[in-house]
Amino acid sequence: MKLAANDRSLKSWVHVPKGSDFPIQNLPFGIFKTKYLSAVAGVAIGNHVLDLVYLHEHGYLDGLGLPPGIFNQKYLNDFLALGRRKGREVRERVSELLQHNNHELNAAAREIALVPMSEVQLLLPLRIPNYTDFYSSEEHATNVGSMFRDPKNALLPNWKHLPVGYHGRASSIVVSGTPIHRPKGQVKPPDAELPVYCPSRKLDFELEVAFATCTKTTLGTSLSARDAEESIFGLMLFNDWSARDIQQWEYVPLGPFLGKNFGSTLSPWIVTLDALEPFRTAGPEQFPHVLPYLSVEGNHHFDIALEVLLQAKGEAAVSVCRTNFKYLYWNMAQQLAHHTVNGCNIEVGDIYASGTISGPSPGSFGSLLELTWNGQRPLHVNGHQRTFLEDHDSVIMRGHAEKNGVRIGFGDCTGTILPAS
Amino acid sequence: MKLAANDRSLKSWVHVPKGSDFPIQNLPFGIFKTKYLSAVAGVAIGNHVLDLVYLHEHGYLDGLGLPPGIFNQKYLNDFLALGRRKGREVRERVSELLQHNNHELNAAAREIALVPMSEVQLLLPLRIPNYTDFYSSEEHATNVGSMFRDPKNALLPNWKHLPVGYHGRASSIVVSGTPIHRPKGQVKPPDAELPVYCPSRKLDFELEVAFATCTKTTLGTSLSARDAEESIFGLMLFNDWSARDIQQWEYVPLGPFLGKNFGSTLSPWIVTLDALEPFRTAGPEQFPHVLPYLSVEGNHHFDIALEVLLQAKGEAAVSVCRTNFKYLYWNMAQQLAHHTVNGCNIEVGDIYASGTISGPSPGSFGSLLELTWNGQRPLHVNGHQRTFLEDHDSVIMRGHAEKNGVRIGFGDCTGTILPAS
Repeated sequence: MKLAANDRSLKSWVHVPKGSDFPIQNLPFGIFKTKYLSAVAGVAIGNHVLDLVYLHEHGYLDGLGLPPGIFNQKYLNDFLALGRRKGREVRERVSELLQHNNHELNAAAREIALVPMSEVQLLLPLRIPNYTDFYSSEEHATNVGSMFRDPKNALLPNWKHLPVGYHGRASSIVVSGTPIHRPKGQVKPPDAELPVYCPSRKLDFELEVAFATCTKTTLGTSLSARDAEESIFGLMLFNDWSARDIQQWEYVPLGPFLGKNFGSTLSPWIVTLDALEPFRTAGPEQFPHVLPYLSVEGNHHFDIALEVLLQAKGEAAVSVCRTNFKYLYWNMAQQLAHHTVNGCNIEVGDIYASGTISGPSPGSFGSLLELTWNGQRPLHVNGHQRTFLEDHDSVIMRGHAEKNGVRIGFGDCTGTILPAS
Repeated sequence: MKLAANDRSLKSWVHVPKGSDFPIQNLPFGIFKTKYLSAVAGVAIGNHVLDLVYLHEHGYLDGLGLPPGIFNQKYLNDFLALGRRKGREVRERVSELLQHNNHELNAAAREIALVPMSEVQLLLPLRIPNYTDFYSSEEHATNVGSMFRDPKNALLPNWKHLPVGYHGRASSIVVSGTPIHRPKGQVKPPDAELPVYCPSRKLDFELEVAFATCTKTTLGTSLSARDAEESIFGLMLFNDWSARDIQQWEYVPLGPFLGKNFGSTLSPWIVTLDALEPFRTAGPEQFPHVLPYLSVEGNHHFDIALEVLLQAKGEAAVSVCRTNFKYLYWNMAQQLAHHTVNGCNIEVGDIYASGTISGPSPGSFGSLLELTWNGQRPLHVNGHQRTFLEDHDSVIMRGHAEKNGVRIGFGDCTGTILPAS
């Protein structure tokens, strides 16, 4: 798909610093507020946010058939519900308005419509009706299976036949920057006879990428793998914080629960699938062959470099993981086709996360569980040892796709651990 | 707690047929529509629905401090958000208006405010932000563990220490009467080398009771077992339809997913915890002793008789299960305290289901899986054999508490299986 807004030669009259996640080729959507504005929709450009309410109310988006007030809302759900095509039209028009030779926004309008990033608070962009977490990295599933089950049969028999997933808790998803309390709960230390109640001692991050859906389907109908991407509006970074000790004791036989639902962190900008179009790439070969309903032609993986940094209080952030979204075994089209193959209905604003993204080398593992091999091989971070997260540690996740001098980034997905309350 | 509306001597000027689920001592809340009214809130009384919008708009609820338009909504969430105390005040006032010696509603008002049940369509009463399913029946967990794991160690080590639960799919919860399509998906027959894609052949019901919450808590805070019930507005019957063959292949290691999320059925009336107050009873003794955060004094189980009927197309419904809500090992206060002990936040309108409720005798098992012992002992239903559900079968769940001539019932929770689409 050729999109004018993706043209790498485009320049904006907004200054975009070198290495910015938000050049004119990106234009992700988010919700922000300022001292003067309550929650409204905006687009990131360089170190600024472009106020979509201003553009809409002053006629700059006329002709696109947008409902009144569509951007003057706490969440982007109603905008997403207009569909990918309408999102594309808005992004193309915003691109036009921001191009260096475009003067539709005069100096006064630019002054009002463009808010410095330093003056905004970014909010959770979506009201999330449903949240599903997949488990789509072969390396991650193999690492976990090796640690806790059998290294020779690390993957369970179903793993290469279907994208394993489970339902997560939507209420506890928060936007980047929200502190996370260390959870308390039941754990059973290996040498104890009975479980004890205490703060988690094995608090971890999980590096994931999540997509948001923009269609509402009817219960009893399915999305084909071929059509699924038309229901995916865009992507965000996602930290699926995990309390490994709580999880290990609780998770049989029905899966993760309190080991996860104390908080998950989403990055604030929805990077459209349209902006990521130039970064499509092939995924790993799938063998055994998947069933026809999971089969899809073409490239449905995306080459997005991912990084996790760990920052102890008052110290410099240190990179502990570099990996790539393209390493996933299952792609998003397959995930969504599988999720709906039984007639399960999807809603606008649903979040579907990838599962921890690990790559082939130890430095590319997307969780401390794997990076420290369940605490056996501590990481060295600015001279300290780290097995799992300590109070006041911050985790910073970053991601960007880059080609031909164009960098499409996500902005930070961060969270700091507060002591158990 | 003494509630005037629960007085067993109360009679209403509305005729309540013998055996009705909805005497004046019940007064459950729901959402209904008619040929003339779009979705509005109502209260069930006998074979009628009392229109709460009419009462509110015509001043009959004055003095209760209810916001304008609170009942003129598609869902009861905003009403529940006013809290249990406000719900109690409304129920007490509605009780007063319906008492046989009360003439505040004159003949003309009665004619308008009271709609025959036969003229209404009952709708899903809540927008459900989150749905959790517990696994709190010892008999059910023991039966399943015996069938699929080891009869000698049927319960996993965590089971008696915490109320095991998992997150379900909120989007696919439908109101009683909504047909359910037989799901398709991956199954792996025991004798097959590879999985196949086909309609489920092991479609089942699960008899459950669900509660709805009426408070919104902050991420990082917990509800104590002692205070938890103040966040529980009321109860409904719940059919957690399950595709056993899909579930068995998919569920390791992260729990049920497509085997469940093709549909779950909720009964339409929220029976308040207040109406059920006289039916409190002790639960089973819990040993080993639970951790202090799960410990709660007093009676937190409820004596509610439950029944499941199976009806083949064009034939009479046949009772296949009789059990009781009181058999559960874990009570609702413990479930909610456990759910929030790690700081997980709850929202107004969340649904928390009990898990399949099975009793001690084979006729009290709450699923076909258990009733037929995974298909080995077919049931005889009007001369037909049934292992799992056939197309066009209907499942009807009923529940009521009864004491001293007062019967507090739920109304039917029904669904009919349509062929795979």
